[in-house]
Amino acid sequence: MKLSEFRLKRRVQFYETDLAGVVHFSWYYRYAEEAEHALWRAAGLSIAPPGGEIGWPRVSASFEFREPLRFEEEFEVLVRVAAITSRTIRYTCLITRGDTTIATGTHTAVCVRQRPGGSMTATSIPDDIAARLAAAGD
Amino acid sequence: MKLSEFRLKRRVQFYETDLAGVVHFSWYYRYAEEAEHALWRAAGLSIAPPGGEIGWPRVSASFEFREPLRFEEEFEVLVRVAAITSRTIRYTCLITRGDTTIATGTHTAVCVRQRPGGSMTATSIPDDIAARLAAAGD
Amino acid sequence: MKLSEFRLKRRVQFYETDLAGVVHFSWYYRYAEEAEHALWRAAGLSIAPPGGEIGWPRVSASFEFREPLRFEEEFEVLVRVAAITSRTIRYTCLITRGDTTIATGTHTAVCVRQRPGGSMTATSIPDDIAARLAAAGD
Amino acid sequence: MKLSEFRLKRRVQFYETDLAGVVHFSWYYRYAEEAEHALWRAAGLSIAPPGGEIGWPRVSASFEFREPLRFEEEFEVLVRVAAITSRTIRYTCLITRGDTTIATGTHTAVCVRQRPGGSMTATSIPDDIAARLAAAGD
Repeated sequence: MKLSEFRLKRRVQFYETDLAGVVHFSWYYRYAEEAEHALWRAAGLSIAPPGGEIGWPRVSASFEFREPLRFEEEFEVLVRVAAITSRTIRYTCLITRGDTTIATGTHTAVCVRQRPGGSMTATSIPDDIAARLAAAGD
Repeated sequence: MKLSEFRLKRRVQFYETDLAGVVHFSWYYRYAEEAEHALWRAAGLSIAPPGGEIGWPRVSASFEFREPLRFEEEFEVLVRVAAITSRTIRYTCLITRGDTTIATGTHTAVCVRQRPGGSMTATSIPDDIAARLAAAGD
Repeated sequence: MKLSEFRLKRRVQFYETDLAGVVHFSWYYRYAEEAEHALWRAAGLSIAPPGGEIGWPRVSASFEFREPLRFEEEFEVLVRVAAITSRTIRYTCLITRGDTTIATGTHTAVCVRQRPGGSMTATSIPDDIAARLAAAGD
Repeated sequence: MKLSEFRLKRRVQFYETDLAGVVHFSWYYRYAEEAEHALWRAAGLSIAPPGGEIGWPRVSASFEFREPLRFEEEFEVLVRVAAITSRTIRYTCLITRGDTTIATGTHTAVCVRQRPGGSMTATSIPDDIAARLAAAGD
């Protein structure tokens, strides 16, 4: 069975807030990443297994911010696989607090092979990964 | 005189890297913010003066990532005012290392009045701020 | 009933790692804070309630690091109230992964009254807080 | 010539503040690390050269916090080599804003050899490093 989405429950931490009293916007990208990696775990995968040679750097990432989040508020991060190509996965992300939409985002990661010395080359998504993730709605 | 851009020189810090050996993508949004706030200072302004009632939360922020940054590399963050409306400022951001384009981004901030208790209401950009910033190319 | 300790379960996030492939040490102080604030919530309190005038800045914080933590590892953060004075609370923190001790720390927070403009003055711990927390072993 | 200290000038960034309006205490440990790595660069070294097998994980790190730092304030981080043993370096750190002491800290790093698979073994400090750093006052 392939997985297409994951719903992460989360609470705002003190160190995620800034002097305006709300979560600093840079954290939303990390929330989306947390949900993405939790989706992979739920699918029996790891985005970065020990000794692995495959990596998933971001190609792009964007968020639109509707409402602020404040200290100790509970919220949900719904991440969905929106599209899979031979080398990339595009995710959408919806952050909500109860019935309130907090933010919506999208990010795309590319599959790379990491070589000794640190260079990265785009490569096809390995079969064992492609076998476990599917675009939502497919 | 109005300012439209600022070029920030920066070096990658150890704590900005992740296990892939490169800067974690969430940092690019902070680099852009650093350059934006440095632009404001160069224009004689502060994005958050002590006791101020005006704030600038993000409406949206996006980046496209071309090449990684690694520990101790020096890079530049060029932030430009791309457009100003009565209540918002849109910035573009170009991150380079020497002649190499690392990432390009855009983000939009909205001018809000912060009330006791923490609520925020969109408001017109104060004249003393509008007098010091201009869209590039205007 | 007074609470003296809290055990937080946590998983290492990707953005908490650095180029050495392990959790950057600065995160341990945040893990301890997360557990401390969770202890307060379990005691029916908030370290920073909306509109509150009482704050708890750190006076000191230290950690000894024994073993590294790696991406996706699950670990526990045990925070204990070690001592309470009229104005301060000292906590100890034990981070473990299974039977392995990862790190041990201690931190002390002081109760302050925050005034408009941002100044902070040390003040006695309010009764409703003192009524819900007790030093472990008391 | 051996180096024993480095003075880093720094400005508080927006994303380093928390809802209390001051720098979150976890950042002080990063400021100390920035100054330590700048000391190494000034000594002609890198704490993590590309492809290097030597690493410097923290054994312990502590800070005492005297006064808060606020957004856009300029401050100095003075890091000093306090002691060098065959395998460890202990640093002290003094953070000041003008004549005001903000915080004092100390941290100890141990020299390790990193093996494929990620294990770390304590090892003697290489000669080319020991030749360039000395305890202050020696």
